[in-house]
Formats: sequence, C-alpha cells, structure tokens
Amino acid sequence: MTTVTRSVGAPADLRTRFRDVRSFTESLAAPLSAEDQTVQTMPDVSPTKWHRAHTTWFFETFVLGPHAGHEPFDPAYGYLFNSYYEGVGPRHARPQRGLLTRPGIAEIASYRAAVDEAMDDFLAAGPEVDVAELIELGINHEQQHQELLLMDVKHVLAANPLRPAYVETDLPRVADPAEGWIDHPGGVVAVGYDGGGFSFDNEGPRHEALLAPFALGARLVSAGDWLAFIDDGGYREPALWMSDGWGTVQAEEWEAPLYWSREDDGSWSIQTLTGPRPVDPAEPVVHVSWYEADAFARWAGARLPAEAEWEVVATSREPALSGERTAAGLSVDGLAGPGLHPRSCGEQWCGGVWQWTASPYAPYPGFQPAPGAVGEYNGKFMVNQQVLRGGACVTPAGHTRATYRNFFYPGSRWPFSGLRLAVDR
Amino acid sequence: MTTVTRSVGAPADLRTRFRDVRSFTESLAAPLSAEDQTVQTMPDVSPTKWHRAHTTWFFETFVLGPHAGHEPFDPAYGYLFNSYYEGVGPRHARPQRGLLTRPGIAEIASYRAAVDEAMDDFLAAGPEVDVAELIELGINHEQQHQELLLMDVKHVLAANPLRPAYVETDLPRVADPAEGWIDHPGGVVAVGYDGGGFSFDNEGPRHEALLAPFALGARLVSAGDWLAFIDDGGYREPALWMSDGWGTVQAEEWEAPLYWSREDDGSWSIQTLTGPRPVDPAEPVVHVSWYEADAFARWAGARLPAEAEWEVVATSREPALSGERTAAGLSVDGLAGPGLHPRSCGEQWCGGVWQWTASPYAPYPGFQPAPGAVGEYNGKFMVNQQVLRGGACVTPAGHTRATYRNFFYPGSRWPFSGLRLAVDR
Amino acid sequence: MTTVTRSVGAPADLRTRFRDVRSFTESLAAPLSAEDQTVQTMPDVSPTKWHRAHTTWFFETFVLGPHAGHEPFDPAYGYLFNSYYEGVGPRHARPQRGLLTRPGIAEIASYRAAVDEAMDDFLAAGPEVDVAELIELGINHEQQHQELLLMDVKHVLAANPLRPAYVETDLPRVADPAEGWIDHPGGVVAVGYDGGGFSFDNEGPRHEALLAPFALGARLVSAGDWLAFIDDGGYREPALWMSDGWGTVQAEEWEAPLYWSREDDGSWSIQTLTGPRPVDPAEPVVHVSWYEADAFARWAGARLPAEAEWEVVATSREPALSGERTAAGLSVDGLAGPGLHPRSCGEQWCGGVWQWTASPYAPYPGFQPAPGAVGEYNGKFMVNQQVLRGGACVTPAGHTRATYRNFFYPGSRWPFSGLRLAVDR
Amino acid sequence: MTTVTRSVGAPADLRTRFRDVRSFTESLAAPLSAEDQTVQTMPDVSPTKWHRAHTTWFFETFVLGPHAGHEPFDPAYGYLFNSYYEGVGPRHARPQRGLLTRPGIAEIASYRAAVDEAMDDFLAAGPEVDVAELIELGINHEQQHQELLLMDVKHVLAANPLRPAYVETDLPRVADPAEGWIDHPGGVVAVGYDGGGFSFDNEGPRHEALLAPFALGARLVSAGDWLAFIDDGGYREPALWMSDGWGTVQAEEWEAPLYWSREDDGSWSIQTLTGPRPVDPAEPVVHVSWYEADAFARWAGARLPAEAEWEVVATSREPALSGERTAAGLSVDGLAGPGLHPRSCGEQWCGGVWQWTASPYAPYPGFQPAPGAVGEYNGKFMVNQQVLRGGACVTPAGHTRATYRNFFYPGSRWPFSGLRLAVDR
Repeated sequence: MTTVTRSVGAPADLRTRFRDVRSFTESLAAPLSAEDQTVQTMPDVSPTKWHRAHTTWFFETFVLGPHAGHEPFDPAYGYLFNSYYEGVGPRHARPQRGLLTRPGIAEIASYRAAVDEAMDDFLAAGPEVDVAELIELGINHEQQHQELLLMDVKHVLAANPLRPAYVETDLPRVADPAEGWIDHPGGVVAVGYDGGGFSFDNEGPRHEALLAPFALGARLVSAGDWLAFIDDGGYREPALWMSDGWGTVQAEEWEAPLYWSREDDGSWSIQTLTGPRPVDPAEPVVHVSWYEADAFARWAGARLPAEAEWEVVATSREPALSGERTAAGLSVDGLAGPGLHPRSCGEQWCGGVWQWTASPYAPYPGFQPAPGAVGEYNGKFMVNQQVLRGGACVTPAGHTRATYRNFFYPGSRWPFSGLRLAVDR
Repeated sequence: MTTVTRSVGAPADLRTRFRDVRSFTESLAAPLSAEDQTVQTMPDVSPTKWHRAHTTWFFETFVLGPHAGHEPFDPAYGYLFNSYYEGVGPRHARPQRGLLTRPGIAEIASYRAAVDEAMDDFLAAGPEVDVAELIELGINHEQQHQELLLMDVKHVLAANPLRPAYVETDLPRVADPAEGWIDHPGGVVAVGYDGGGFSFDNEGPRHEALLAPFALGARLVSAGDWLAFIDDGGYREPALWMSDGWGTVQAEEWEAPLYWSREDDGSWSIQTLTGPRPVDPAEPVVHVSWYEADAFARWAGARLPAEAEWEVVATSREPALSGERTAAGLSVDGLAGPGLHPRSCGEQWCGGVWQWTASPYAPYPGFQPAPGAVGEYNGKFMVNQQVLRGGACVTPAGHTRATYRNFFYPGSRWPFSGLRLAVDR
Repeated sequence: MTTVTRSVGAPADLRTRFRDVRSFTESLAAPLSAEDQTVQTMPDVSPTKWHRAHTTWFFETFVLGPHAGHEPFDPAYGYLFNSYYEGVGPRHARPQRGLLTRPGIAEIASYRAAVDEAMDDFLAAGPEVDVAELIELGINHEQQHQELLLMDVKHVLAANPLRPAYVETDLPRVADPAEGWIDHPGGVVAVGYDGGGFSFDNEGPRHEALLAPFALGARLVSAGDWLAFIDDGGYREPALWMSDGWGTVQAEEWEAPLYWSREDDGSWSIQTLTGPRPVDPAEPVVHVSWYEADAFARWAGARLPAEAEWEVVATSREPALSGERTAAGLSVDGLAGPGLHPRSCGEQWCGGVWQWTASPYAPYPGFQPAPGAVGEYNGKFMVNQQVLRGGACVTPAGHTRATYRNFFYPGSRWPFSGLRLAVDR
Repeated sequence: MTTVTRSVGAPADLRTRFRDVRSFTESLAAPLSAEDQTVQTMPDVSPTKWHRAHTTWFFETFVLGPHAGHEPFDPAYGYLFNSYYEGVGPRHARPQRGLLTRPGIAEIASYRAAVDEAMDDFLAAGPEVDVAELIELGINHEQQHQELLLMDVKHVLAANPLRPAYVETDLPRVADPAEGWIDHPGGVVAVGYDGGGFSFDNEGPRHEALLAPFALGARLVSAGDWLAFIDDGGYREPALWMSDGWGTVQAEEWEAPLYWSREDDGSWSIQTLTGPRPVDPAEPVVHVSWYEADAFARWAGARLPAEAEWEVVATSREPALSGERTAAGLSVDGLAGPGLHPRSCGEQWCGGVWQWTASPYAPYPGFQPAPGAVGEYNGKFMVNQQVLRGGACVTPAGHTRATYRNFFYPGSRWPFSGLRLAVDR
C-alpha cells in the first residue's frame, strides 16, 4: 500500500478521525428529506443515501470483511453499493441508482451505525499498519464523497422548478482579491507528493519536470470577468473554442455557466445551495466546464496553467498547503450551515473553487496503481479527463493540498469548477 | 358536459363519495415510504406522490378555481401537477416527474387536506348540475389514477433487486374456471353506454354495429396456456408476430410476460405486489403486451375479439356489469391488503385482468369531445393504441362495466393486461 | 393462393405484362446516376438499385427457384435483397441498404436481364395457374415498388442542398375542381374486392359494413386550404392535434408539409420531382402525415372519412375504378417524363394523391393471410398504421381501384399523401 | 504563416509537386465506382468524392479566391465541401456527407480539372512566399486526405457482406523483425520540428523535455502477440482496461481488432484493401484503438511510450526520418497497387502502422495556431485525443517524419493504428 499512504498517525487519532468523518457525512445529509436523498438527476449524480451507503460498504468490504471476519450487514448491499470496483464482483448500474427506493434512509442509518460500531471495536484493538493505511484511504474516500454529495445535492435541488435551498445562510460578500500576475522563471522543478501523512496514489511518484518561464494570475477569474465574456459574444464565436467544445456549446445550448439563469430584466441570477440570488461580479466564477475555461482563457489572450505550473506556484505562495490546510477559505455557496468552513479570500489557491488546468489527466512517470481492488481507485480514469487543482468551498479540510489532483471530463459543469489564467513569459 | 356524464346522484351522495374516493387514494399510498412515492422507473410511470397531487390539482383547477373563487394552494403546483392539459398552460415534462424531491409527501398531504376541506364546503353548499358532473368526472379520474398508482408502484418496486412487497397477504388459490366457447350469432347489435350514472365520453355515443357470427373463450388465457406457448418457441417464431411486435421482441429481448423470471431450476417465478412467488398455471396470464396477446392468439389458431364482440357477450353474461359492478372478483396480485376487493373467478369478464381486443382505439361514430380543457381527457389519444376491456383486480369498483374502454400502446406491458380468445363461427 | 388473386389472364398476356412492368422499372431508373441509385436518406427509404434488385429477387426466389429449378444468379443476393420475408432466411438490415456500393448498377442490370430471360422462357412454356397467380403477385409487387422508388428518389434528391430535379417537364396548371359535398345515406353496404382480375389479400374478404349518414368533400383539400391552416396557427395550436401528433410536431419542428420551404419573401415553395417551384393554391396538398390531416380536418370542423365511406362513394362516382383504372388522372409532380400518365382533375378520387382515412389498418372480418412466405405480404403490418385510399400521380395504372388499401404510419410524410374531408349528416 | 512552414522550395518544384499530388489523388480514386465514392458508413468516414472535392475547395478558397481573384467553380460548393473551417462560413453537416448524390463523380472531376488549371497558371506566374507556404500546406493537406481516403474506403468496402477488394495484389510475406529493447538514458532532450522544409504547426515549437530512463520495443506488436492476448482473455478482464475502455469493449462487443473475423474453424481472418485473407502472426497488428493498445501493454507488463520518448529514439535510429522519408517501408494491406510504396520491415519506425503513444494530444509549450481560418487546422482538436507516431503503409511519402503528430480519439479503430511497447529502466 505504499503508493497510497506514506505514513499513518497513531491508532487513537485514526479512531477519532474515523468517527468525525463518519459523523460529518451524516450532518451533511441531515437537512435533506428522504426524497431529496433518493433522486438521481443525471447519470453522473448519485443519490445522497447511496453516498452514505457506498462509503459504509467501502469499510465493510475492504476492512471489516477481510480483516475482522465481519459478516455483511445485508448480502444484497454488496451488489447495490459497489461503485466501480470490478475486482469485487458485479454491481448495480450507475444510471439506475436513482431507482432504488429501498433500502430507505432509516435502514441506511442502521447500516452506517452497525458498521461504525464494528469499526470502532476494530480500531480500539489497534489495527496493523497496512490495515490502518486502508482505513486512512477509506476516510479520505468518504471525504471525497462528502464533496460529491454536495455537488449532487446541488444538481438535484436545482432541477426542481421550486428552486429550493439546501441550507439557509447569509454570508458576508467576499472581499475583492488582488489583481496582477505572479511570475515564475521556470526550470527543473519537483512535482508530486512528498510529505508526511496521507496522499492518493495519483499524486506520486514525486518527479522532476521542466518548465519554461510563465506567470499565473494572482486571482481567480471572477463572475464579473465572465459577464464580460458573455457580453462580448464568447458563447457565439467558434474561433475561441476547441472543436469538441463548440459542438457541446451548440448541442447543449450553453450560454452561461451551469446554474445561471437570465431574469426577465436581463440580469443574471444563480442557483446556489442556499437558494437563488443575483450573480456577484466579485465572486469567482464556478460551474464552468473545461471547454468554457479554455475558451475564456483564449478570449482573454491567455491560457490555462499546466498542472506543474500551478503546483510550484501554489506551494511557494502557501507553504502550509502541502501539509495542513488553512482553516480560513473562500465561500461560494455560503456553506457554513452544514459544517463546512467559510474562508477568507486572499489569493484563493485552495478552498474557493477547483481550477481547471491545461493538463490531461495522465499517470506521472513511474506510476503504479496499488495491487488489488483498491488499485482501481484512480488509475483507470487516466484518459479523456482534465486535471483540476486547488479545492472548493465544499472540499473537506485536508483535501486542499498543492499536490492533490482532481479530474473530470472536459464537458463536466456540476463540479465546483472555475479557473485561473496563465501566460508565457 | 353531456358527453361526459348522463346523470348525477344527489349532492349528499356526491359529498360522501368524494370523501371515500379521496381517502381510498391515501390508503393506497399508506404502505409506501417517501422514497417509494418519489421515484419514476420509466417515462410511462408516475410517482405515487405525483398521482396524489395531480388528482388534487384536477379538483382545484377545474372545480374550485372557476366555480368557488379558490386561490391556488401553491401557484407553482399548476405547473408541476398538470398531466397533459395543454389548454390550462405549460407543465413539467412527464419523464422528469421522478426528479421532484419537493414538495415532499407531508406537503402533498397538506395540499390534499386543504383541497378536500374546500371541496367539502363547496359540496355542502350543493353545486350546480354541470359542476356536479365535473366533480363526478374528477372522482372517476381519481379512481383511474388509483389503478395507475398500483401499476406504477408495482413497476417501481420490481425495479429493485431486493424485490420488496407492497403489501403482505396470503390469498387462497383461484378456482379453475370453465372451459369452452360462448357462441354469438352476430347481426346488428347496439354498443356503447346507455345507462344511468356516470360514463366517460369515449364510451358513447351508443350506436349500432354489424357483427358476423363468432365465439369467445369462456375463460381468460391462463399462465399455464402461456407456459405452453413459451415452451413451443412462441417468442422465437417470427411468423406468429406482427412486424412491429417481432421488432419489439428482438429489441427488448422478451421471452416471457413482464415480471416473470426464470429461476435457477428452470421454473418461472413472478414478482407481484405481494412479493415474488411461483407462477400458478391456473391464474390468468397478466402483464402481456398486445403484441404478445396477438401472437398467442395466432399460435392458438384463434384471434383477439373485436371490442363490440366482447361488449355484447359481456353484457349478456353479466347484466349487472352495465350498472353496478359485482363485489366479488378475481385476485391476481393478492390485493386485499390495501382495500381492493378480491373476487371469485367465474367467467372473469371483469375484475381479474384487462383483456386486449383486436380493436384499435378510435372514436365511435359521432363522437365529440367535451368543450374546454376536460375535452382533452380521452379524445386526443385515439390513434396508435389498442382497446382493452373488462377490468383488473386493481380496478376500482364502478370502473368494471361492459362499455368501459381502456387503451394502451400495443407494446405496453405494465398494465394488468391479459386476454381472452375469439374465433369466427 | 385464392386470398391473393381471383383470376389470371391468358399466359400470353402475362408474358407481355411481365415484360412491360419490368421494362417500366428500368425506365424509371434511367434518369438517375449510379450515386442517385445508391443513397439512403432515412431508414424508410430504399435505394433505387435496391428496388431494382429486390423486385428481381422476388421472381427468382418465389417463382424461378421453386418452380423452374433455377440456380440463384448470385447466392449472396438472397441475403442482400430480401426485404422482410422472415420465412426465407436472414437478411441485410434495412437501415443499412444505403451502405451497399456493390453490386453496382451495371451488375444489377445484368441480374435483372438474367432473371427476365429465365422468366420469359418460363412464361413462354405456360405456367400452372397457381404459379401464374404468384407471377401476377410479383408484377403487382413490382408496381408497388415503382411508386416506392419515386417516393424514395424524391426524398433522396430533396436532401441535397442543390435541389436537383429528377426529370424536367412543364405541365399545365391543374384546373380548379368542383366544390361542395357528396351525401350518402349510410346503411348496410358491401366493402372489399369482388371483381375479376388481381387484388391483394388485404382487400378481402368482401363483407358488409354498417354506416351512418355522411358526406364526403367533392374535392381534395388543396394547398390553398393548407396555407389558410398555416396562417391560422394550425401548427401551433395543441387543441387541434392528437397527443402523439402534437408531440411529433414539436419534436420534428413541423410547420408545413414535407418539401415545403419558406422563401426570403415569405412565400412558400415546394421541392418536386421536377425541381423547386412556388406552391400553387389550386393543387391538392401532398406529403402531409395522418397527424396533420387529422388536425386539419378538426380545424375545418370536419373529420377524415372512414375507409368504408370512402370506398362506397368512390365506387358510385367512378364505377370504372373497381375494374380498370381511368387513363386520365391528376398530375402533382409533373410526372409525364418517366412514363407516368398525367391525369385530368375531376373529382380526384384516384390518381392525384393518396387520401388518409380515419381507419386504422386492421384485417377485414375473416381475413386470412396466404400460406407460406408470401403470406407476410400484408397481414403482419396490421397494427399502428392508418389506411389511405385512392392513389397518387406516381401510382402505376391498375393500382388505383376503389378497394385498394394502402397504409403508412401516422407520422409518415414521404408518401404522396393528402386528404379529403368528411362530415356526419 | 511561420508556424506552418519554415521554408518552401523553388516555384518550379512546387508546381510539379502540386501536379503530382493532385494526380495521385485521382489515381487512388480510379479503382472505385461512382457508388464506392459516394457512401458514408459512419460519421467519421467521408466519401471518396467528398475528399476529392474538399481538397480542391481548399486551394480554391484559401489560394485562388483571395490571391488570384478566382470566381468559385460553383458557389454551392463552398457549403458542401468545407470540412470544419468555421471561419469561412456555414457548411454541410459531416454525418450527411453520404447523402449527396450530386455533384456526381464526373462533375467532381471537372471541378478538380478547373481548379488544377487555374492553380497551374497561378504557379507558373510564381506566387509570393506567403502564398507559396499556403500552397505547401494545401499539398500536405491533400496528402493527409489521401490517407484518410484509403482509411475510409477500407471501412466502406468492409461494410459490404460481399467483402470486395479495393485492389488485387499479391505481396510477399513480411520478414520477421528483430526482437529486444532499445534503451535510452533519459535526461533533457529536444523535441519538435527543427529542419528545413514543411512541417505542421502542431510539430512545434521545438522545445526541451525531461525524460527518465526508459526502453522501447525494437519491433511493433504483432498479430501473433495479439492472438496471445485474445487467447488469454484480454478482452474479458476489466482489470487490464481503462474505465472508459472497458465500457467501450462492452458496448461495442469488441473481441478482436477491427476487420478481424472468426471463421467457422476458429481461425481468424482479416478484411484488407486487397480483400479477405488469414491473419499472419508475423505482421504488425493494426486497427486497434488506444484503449486496446493500452490494455495490451498492461497485459504485457509494459506501457505505451510517451511521444517524446518515441521521437528521440526514432530520430536516433533512423536519422533520415527527420528529413526525407526512406523509400522502403512495410506493407500491411498490400498497397502497391494504387501507387503507395511497399516497404521493407526493419525496425518499423515509420511506414507500417501508426503507433499509439501514452500522450494526450495537447499543445507544445508556446504553441500558437496560425492566424485566420487555416489556424483551425490542428489546434482546435487538442483535447480528448491521443497522439500516434510513425506512419502507416497508406501514409504518403514525406509524412513519415519523426516529429509528425497524428491524433485520434482513444476509441478510434479505423486508422491504420498499432503499437510499440515501452518500459521504465
């Protein structure tokens, strides 16, 4: 398991963190009705109750079964709640996750409680190092699903003509960030994870990369910038777009980011997790696809950063990012309500929106996935997708480090995805 | 409204019947969780909570709004819960009914209670005859949705690998029905509704039809008959099928009725509203499409009855059918639990399964739909569908009369649809 | 074969007619390039060279093979040129007919010549009566394909932005037909074929039908009538349409008949087999679907005729129609060029455009398809389609009799289909 | 235009080369009938006559129009034969290219002759350097279409159950290539075009890249290797595949390379441009997708090469590749017939099959597309595709240089695509 984790904290810490992460998932689901937790609005989206069960299944299948002689809570759940692990058997088709009315949310809560109890006993006994690493992966896995859960809930609620809010909050308007560029001289730089603590296998091996001189924007592209792009006909000018992107613009009839809608008076409003509100020109633009980010950058006379460029600058600007994440961040959807921490704005390297890069998602030199079914975690997605860096307001603490590689298809808009510009120097 | 109803009972009766029908809908929904009531497994299926809201919207829109000066409970509901009435404005797309997590089942219950209260006040005051006829239509409309609700719930629960039951019951096995044929000399016969009480517009005008001599099967085609058809290769022999039917068999990979599945030991089981159980050869076959019914009849050296043939025989065999429905009937899915009446078997004219006819659904000579939006009730579906006669175990009392014309596309299998054979004499 | 033909002429006549029909097919293909004869613009359309080969395969497979010990010209052709006869083996998928670049048009010509020569020898020897009936069917089958060939060529050429003409002609403008209604008292009438000579199995058995009093329009609905329907918003008013029709209008964005296009000055032009030209308000409207015909009739305060109504009036107005077809007819696309006879206008019962009826295509009482593969000719299409009566300018002589039942899906617009109104009396 | 070409030969050379390339296209089309040249078997495929017209349109639109005051041969052709240049106006939809029966092949020949004549006059007068560069681009563009034409013809003919041959030849069996690995120490290497003569914009700018030590296979993966992969269950083992690749394997039911089919005796045959024949284990495998190449490499315990790795080794092994292409190459489909040069086998760097790399197609650092419509040539495809290197038996001379970057979607199989393995050292 060395490709997945480098070190693990003391067993007592693990037990506490396990408990905290599990309980935070439940707090995210708490504002949602049984109906809210069941529906699937597109194949990419999974129901909340599925996220709750799948993260539980992960611990049951990879930890409790093989290492604690645990009998499955319900033998059918292995089929229902396996996401994509071909190595552990057949599974319910992803686009049909929203057809499952049973088990209901109460049964899912029982399932979680039973597995939590068994895990707590197991953790109290002090697992072996390799199993502890697996549990660490499970914790990080569940944190990723916490973010997916919020992405998916936003999509589900936004599909409802009633435009309901997930939570009610009233956060202060974000401060205007600094303008300008941050120069970097290029050269041979080291990229990839090399710290203590947990990282995903796709963040390594750490290796050298050769960069030409470049500069990155000191701030994220804002909603105000995007309004200028729209007003300048950006969505109607094919010369700005990749061929596949232009095809998507026409097929999907895009004319603004996802969740934006034009009001009768011509102004733009957006649907957020706290309900609908007017677009704030100062906030970072979010819910744009890679195609849109790339076209915007071309329109602006710039380009998207390579992921190595992003990483070296982010590491130098916010050294803490490679270790612990800063507690303060940037709020986009006003997500203080369910427990996520609003953050101050600053340079917004991590914590406001994920930032599309120019880099296709591919293995680092020398990459080897972990053996066994957990090796399917990252490696098998390394084609057709683009890397995002940074982290969003919905990203759990500890996942916003400079080496973290998020990835989505270039047409995806339901992640909390924005961008930062780059130029050659 | 003369095309819809011929006469209406006393206001007091109407008030009581309104209350009973409304309350029966709620009793049908009672065994279902919030999740069960929300999901849509195919575009034809509507969620239970949608049925509950839509039937309420019908009274609010066509009765309370225009005739009682009623303000809508929620202005958005007109958009969400209109089914297909183009005349009263835009509506939420049918295939997206399952995306609505809000309003939740509690809000739907409040909506129903509010409309019921307003209707009760309105009925207490004694509505004009034409409004009473409209309410009568609304009652019958809601009864139709009671049957649709059960069809849809069956489909939703059957899509779940856990194979849950809607209700738990243990009904006695049905008695073997009589064999043989019922001859009719043909000639000019009268068809269409001509009684007192309510009927739908598509059941009239009553008119004469000319029939050649024929005979109808004394009983429904049974599951045992169907097993013989399967075993004889009926699903693999194109010569038995309509061209469109054969294309559907291949595209959908049909090899048995809907809800049948082959067990490891080669036997057939069926999923019912009371859960899975073995096929009983004596029970009527159900959940077959018109394509299958037509192919079966050809295989059996017979044909499907014309709807006029069915009607004249049914009327002569069970005179009560043209007025009140017999209380006793035939149970297919064991539906005593939620309140539907199990019935004895007899000739099974009405009450066991709907019976496909050879007749395309078309207007009777002189048919005129009602003016206004309620005129969209039946007439606009009079192409591409086939008529079914009789009524099923899930059909509400009062809807199993000999003139009642049910209709579905020839490829539909989720109705409680079976068949009876006919031959020329 | 008694269900297919009632009598056959002398062998010498058959030999001559065989030769004439075969040679007329070749004259229809003559104006077309190899490319024109190869392309398939939608699954319903077949390439010209496929029609030429398939009609040849019919004689080879059903006559020469079983009755003359003939070896196939090319064993692969049985797979390529079988249309839908499940009984004689597997076949090339219909939507892929346009992918066949080989055999080329020269090889198809050789195939036709070889089969024609073998047939001529066979006919010279004087076939048995039952084989002669089969040949008669083949001749009529080829005549049907002559019409299909022209329908399909029109679609292929109209898909080309260059808007090429099939033939160049300049026909005189059609005369204005008589206005008014033709009354009929109803009663028991006889319908179905009962003459000498050939008829298709679906035209019988002749039987009695019961009609209420009605009237039919003395003329076809004209393009001028249709312009009024368009101008009155007919394509935007859902209340005029069947539900399935309205769905099609929206999905296909229909706003006029097929082949009509709006010019920059607001006028309408149509693409015809003789190239593009302005719409002539006096000509019959053509290339409308049943959905459009039905909506138009509703808009006009009328309805479509039942097929029995059409047949009894047509028989009484043009007695010759039940035997030989009138030589003079009505030109729509100016089709004198390739050999089809332009016709004078009169009441336009047969020969101008096919006329949609209100009748779903279903078997007549007592209908039995012929045994063997040719029994697949008509019967297996008797669901989901609507009957058309009359015949079009592209319909071969001899196919425009009052009992002839043409049929297409209600959304089809590439047939030469128009309509005549009916009303109750 | 400096991003497209670095230098251009003398005008006299250009005139001769223009003539040669144009005439070679016609010789490629010569064996094909009008039908063969018209059909489109999938959206990726273009008809031969479209390739002939489109390459002509390129010279007419980008050279003769703006620089020689040339009037279009036919104004409609600008719409019909524009491929994807948004900058020069609307165009006929790609998936409908196969619907065009007109202009016919004779008109296309006239079009080509007219443009050739005008170009010859223009070239005789000696164009300015920037226009000469544009013509050079047009020549290279047409050469690319020569390869596409053969790819597309192969697909069209293979769709025909008759399995026709494009040309008849009988080439000697290829010699067995050397086994083993070619080591490279890694380090900073220069990649990208830096020679005299023409190159495409995507081959530059030349820049440095940093490589870890690695080795490349001395030979291409062979059909024999692939048979072992098939026999070992490679197409049934999800652990070998990218997630998107496995989805494609299941959806498309892949179980061998494109054009392979299993004979009744269990052996494999392949359809080639010279007709069907048995698979030769010694020949390079061809017509595999990137998904298959990637899965094969994983199965073999290796990986695909990065494009920089491929380029530095190819340059060192066959120095001539960076300038002129070797005359001798490797035959896969036996393509001596139409004029392409069969080649000896050797290490097969260029000339046998295109070789998939691990590299997603992305811009080199500092890449800028050319201004104007020709800037759409390469840059707008730089997402979602993978780079191939080398060149195939159907690749025109001069296009098989070490810096040439070909690109296709990872699921494409109709290119002449194979692979070479790589490993870390």
